[in-house]
Amino acid sequence: MAKDKIKKPRRPRAETPRGFRDYFGAEVRARATMLGRITDVYHAYGFDPLETSAVETVEALGKFLPDVDRPNEGVFAWQDEDDSWLALRYDLTAPLARVYAQNRMRLPSPYRRYQIGPVWRNEKPGPGRFRQFYQCDADTVGSGNVAADAEICAMLGDALEAAGIARSDFVVRINNRKVLNGVMETIGLLDPSDPEKDSARRGIVMRAIDKIDRLGPEGVRLLMGPGRKDESGDFTAGAGCGAEEADLVLAFMAARGSDGAATCARLRELVGASAAGLAGVEELEAIAELLQARGASGVIDPSVVRGLGYYTGPVYEAELTFDVVGDDGKPRQFGSVAGGGRYDDLVKRFTGEAVPATGISIGVDRLLAALGEKGRLASEEAGPVVITVMDRDAMPGYQAMAAELRAAGIRAEVFLGGGGMGKQLKYADQRRSAVAIIEGADERDRGVVQIKDLALGAQLASEIESHDDWKAQPAQVEAARDQLVAEVRAMLARGSGGQP
Amino acid sequence: MAKDKIKKPRRPRAETPRGFRDYFGAEVRARATMLGRITDVYHAYGFDPLETSAVETVEALGKFLPDVDRPNEGVFAWQDEDDSWLALRYDLTAPLARVYAQNRMRLPSPYRRYQIGPVWRNEKPGPGRFRQFYQCDADTVGSGNVAADAEICAMLGDALEAAGIARSDFVVRINNRKVLNGVMETIGLLDPSDPEKDSARRGIVMRAIDKIDRLGPEGVRLLMGPGRKDESGDFTAGAGCGAEEADLVLAFMAARGSDGAATCARLRELVGASAAGLAGVEELEAIAELLQARGASGVIDPSVVRGLGYYTGPVYEAELTFDVVGDDGKPRQFGSVAGGGRYDDLVKRFTGEAVPATGISIGVDRLLAALGEKGRLASEEAGPVVITVMDRDAMPGYQAMAAELRAAGIRAEVFLGGGGMGKQLKYADQRRSAVAIIEGADERDRGVVQIKDLALGAQLASEIESHDDWKAQPAQVEAARDQLVAEVRAMLARGSGGQP
Repeated sequence: MAKDKIKKPRRPRAETPRGFRDYFGAEVRARATMLGRITDVYHAYGFDPLETSAVETVEALGKFLPDVDRPNEGVFAWQDEDDSWLALRYDLTAPLARVYAQNRMRLPSPYRRYQIGPVWRNEKPGPGRFRQFYQCDADTVGSGNVAADAEICAMLGDALEAAGIARSDFVVRINNRKVLNGVMETIGLLDPSDPEKDSARRGIVMRAIDKIDRLGPEGVRLLMGPGRKDESGDFTAGAGCGAEEADLVLAFMAARGSDGAATCARLRELVGASAAGLAGVEELEAIAELLQARGASGVIDPSVVRGLGYYTGPVYEAELTFDVVGDDGKPRQFGSVAGGGRYDDLVKRFTGEAVPATGISIGVDRLLAALGEKGRLASEEAGPVVITVMDRDAMPGYQAMAAELRAAGIRAEVFLGGGGMGKQLKYADQRRSAVAIIEGADERDRGVVQIKDLALGAQLASEIESHDDWKAQPAQVEAARDQLVAEVRAMLARGSGGQP
Repeated sequence: MAKDKIKKPRRPRAETPRGFRDYFGAEVRARATMLGRITDVYHAYGFDPLETSAVETVEALGKFLPDVDRPNEGVFAWQDEDDSWLALRYDLTAPLARVYAQNRMRLPSPYRRYQIGPVWRNEKPGPGRFRQFYQCDADTVGSGNVAADAEICAMLGDALEAAGIARSDFVVRINNRKVLNGVMETIGLLDPSDPEKDSARRGIVMRAIDKIDRLGPEGVRLLMGPGRKDESGDFTAGAGCGAEEADLVLAFMAARGSDGAATCARLRELVGASAAGLAGVEELEAIAELLQARGASGVIDPSVVRGLGYYTGPVYEAELTFDVVGDDGKPRQFGSVAGGGRYDDLVKRFTGEAVPATGISIGVDRLLAALGEKGRLASEEAGPVVITVMDRDAMPGYQAMAAELRAAGIRAEVFLGGGGMGKQLKYADQRRSAVAIIEGADERDRGVVQIKDLALGAQLASEIESHDDWKAQPAQVEAARDQLVAEVRAMLARGSGGQP
């Protein structure tokens, strides 16, 4: 048989691209509500909104590797018609640095701004890992005062509370990169006159500190010394420090005292003669004092590292302290939902002039998940009142009912699909509607409407077994046409728990 | 002299990419307020929000030209690691068609959805023409009933009114592609059994109709017949129709009567025996009746064409009817801010099955500009109360003041930059703050604060000439520290017009 060589034109696939997703109805509204509450707090603190475009020059994002003429991995990039490289932003901080450098003559100083929006990462997607996600940032640019850091921490606490997380369910943990650097100096891993030296060994120690929860003190000790073989047999090289140095780092990690003052006093001992370390401790003392004065959440915690290399001073992290069930079925702390810190060099890339800046980024999806865990998301709202269509010629009358309900603040729609009453009620059910309106020729003649309590109907149906019983239940009332709005309002107010 | 060949590493340019822009403070808030009002209307009509990702496969967007292996011009596209082509969406309708096809088994039918968000066009930017801009769409998918079109038109009117455009300042004009097709049949330019035939000539006539305001009847007549030479001497080829055909098209354009019924009656005569034309007139009659029954805005206007090829039935356009001063200094009508129509073939691309759909897109930037013209944008709000810093050691006390004001619902911030009182008040001025607080050591000792009415100060400064006079004016009051909130609230309530 001759093979048919004519290709059938293939239909396009109706699919989101790999690693992208859609958000429907209640998800969109829940996020908007949460972000509205957070930005109300930012606004009350004097922060102004900023919206940059999704697209930046790769040059402005700083995503060219040295001596490579294509953009760095990790961004979605393409070449514009004039051959310049453009890319989707991968965070909201790089665009802020560009905006500040571009507009520094006309922006107030300090410039407090917040920005909410999607960012894009050209990374391998995985379960729950998407290549587009929201960030919600607030930054103060142009103030080197640690009062700006304290303000951001206090505001973060207020924002989380406004979003629906109780004060008792989170903690803002604060550390300072300068203190970490002081410890590195003290153990001989950082020479202030040659800061590039030993950066690889410092990296090993930082990563070990970051993982102390999982590794335990012994694991940190191994990584600081000869290296560590994990359970799978993989060997991680160590930093080659001695036992005394490891003791000092572990003492540093355990320096958290009963309050900020006690922690800072202990840190002061540990950083010894390091000038950077002492400066860092003084900043933490000032932040602790400011937070305590206003009763704001915030604890000095030397184990906070924060990954990003660009932080230069205070770093902070908001952690949710309630338990959730992990993938392994065991309870674990929910963990981090926001983080940030001081970065004094981002604007300098553009202008050559250092501009101090500090800020926070909230992980929007993580926080939404947390609110879901705590049952603090607005439960999926009921759908609109559905006005069924018995008779297409009566459409103007059905639309008038919908208009009356809307004018009274009640969400309502006329069924505009095809099909009989069964299909229409099924549609109302799918929309989670609490109420449906029925008006046939008979009702119209008599000047009445049937009002069906769908929520009550569903409840009754789940309580009784016989289909006949169900039909006999009073989940439907007849009302005068001119009482439509009043009756619907009363039915909605009763909710599904009441009796008609 | 030897030329220095060592290149200095160049700093990145702090610039938005060509054709992109940033939105600051008041602009972001004005847009959010307007869109919030519009989506409240959409929500009341039973529409659900949808948020698709910015990125789609080029295949799903339908932006591959036949026999070309690179995406169409007009989109920003790049190749993913698995070699598939991705692109930024260029509108919100193509993603909706993809979403509906992908989720049609679980979405309600009809599916009413709205979506707001940026779209991207890879086009030559120009003054006021950007490559990223907002759209605000509402569509009903899965209903072939013209009541869905009437609903969209009524909702569009309600949305514009909610946004701040008075009913007397806009009109929703409605036409039907089927009627246009009927006219084309009647003049012999459309053969229902061979719809591809004469499409170029039909295109000439459609474009002529679309431009009648500018060309006048004589221009349309020339374009329908032999062609037309414009003022610059450029010649546009004509459709080659006779005088009788041109008469019929001009009669069609002039068919608008005193009300929808009169217009439809005239259209019925003009489409003669065309089955498509008569079906279109009947749809317009039904829409006019539904709109009239609810007193909704909407006029049947045969001159509405709407450019997009994919419309298959009713088309509509919201036009603002007030005058603005044009680029030439002459008054002209503000014009179109929204448009849409019925498109029954977009989902079919994916599934092979025709799904009727109709919807509207509001041009967000145009509507914002219109609200600006009418003075209906919330005037740029006053900045936060600024608490000046006389003494850094007193920072906890200044922050307490800010916290008290915020708790009372008053936006407030502590000045965190460097510099003395002059610089701090200049900052407050730049932020458009109405009130500044001053507390030095003397005030602290006496338990008072100075509250400066910056709005009144600015007003007095503009009214009087001598600097000494200005200093003597009572734009500053002293208040007991525990009366701070009450005094600030009173000063804000007085506004800049009152007397202290």
